Amino acid sequence: MKKNVITYGTFDTFHYGHIELLNRAKQLGNHLTVAVSTDEFNMVKGKTCMFSYDKRVEWVKSLKSVDRVISENNWDQKCLDLVNYDIDIFVMGHDWTGKFDFLSNQCKVVYLNRTDDISSTDIKQMQKQSFFKKFLDTIKKRIQ
Amino acid sequence: MKKNVITYGTFDTFHYGHIELLNRAKQLGNHLTVAVSTDEFNMVKGKTCMFSYDKRVEWVKSLKSVDRVISENNWDQKCLDLVNYDIDIFVMGHDWTGKFDFLSNQCKVVYLNRTDDISSTDIKQMQKQSFFKKFLDTIKKRIQ
Repeated sequence: MKKNVITYGTFDTFHYGHIELLNRAKQLGNHLTVAVSTDEFNMVKGKTCMFSYDKRVEWVKSLKSVDRVISENNWDQKCLDLVNYDIDIFVMGHDWTGKFDFLSNQCKVVYLNRTDDISSTDIKQMQKQSFFKKFLDTIKKRIQ
Repeated sequence: MKKNVITYGTFDTFHYGHIELLNRAKQLGNHLTVAVSTDEFNMVKGKTCMFSYDKRVEWVKSLKSVDRVISENNWDQKCLDLVNYDIDIFVMGHDWTGKFDFLSNQCKVVYLNRTDDISSTDIKQMQKQSFFKKFLDTIKKRIQ
């Protein structure tokens, strides 16, 4: 029996954290639709992306786990998407926990933990910290 | 007609640069084999990975463009791989240009430019620089 899953995201600087999340979303059913935020919608959200919508879609489409990519154009399209794509399970990362509970009268709502709590922000932060440590070590050595 | 392509890599902190390179490698033929360096081989190379071989393989296997994943265990297996997997095109990133020309008596050797010159090192460097700039700006403001 077909079990349709949907998730939403920006997927900028696409990385293994996104792959893991999408693979796990797919495992909840057997057909995965991914809604990728358009550049225009990101502007509404006050979000600046490093990469264009077309590029971000290309990466998401590269995954075996992804069966269909649609555009996310506004905050309100979710209810209609659930009907249009006959969705059984709506999935988001755990940072959205509780935010989409209102959809649970239409389908199952699942918030997935990000694997090892990986996010773009975490990766950038990790790399910043590592650089910062090296920078401070260098200064320390020079003033010793 | 089947046209077999092969490429090799570590694929640590898997990101869009890897996806682009693998997708473009696949476009050179119609069947793509990817050899992923084992943790043991990385040790021989003096390379430390953030992620295990199994995890790195899982990410590479997630791509639609990848048909087969094998392990890269040593420097010398390439000649044999070309025979065993009936390879027509051997592909590496442009940072390896010239290094594998000796294989051109067995198959076509192609060095692909990384898209927009993206590599893990570039990304990390970019983020370091951005952080460094912010850090210096903060210091500058404090001493003004």
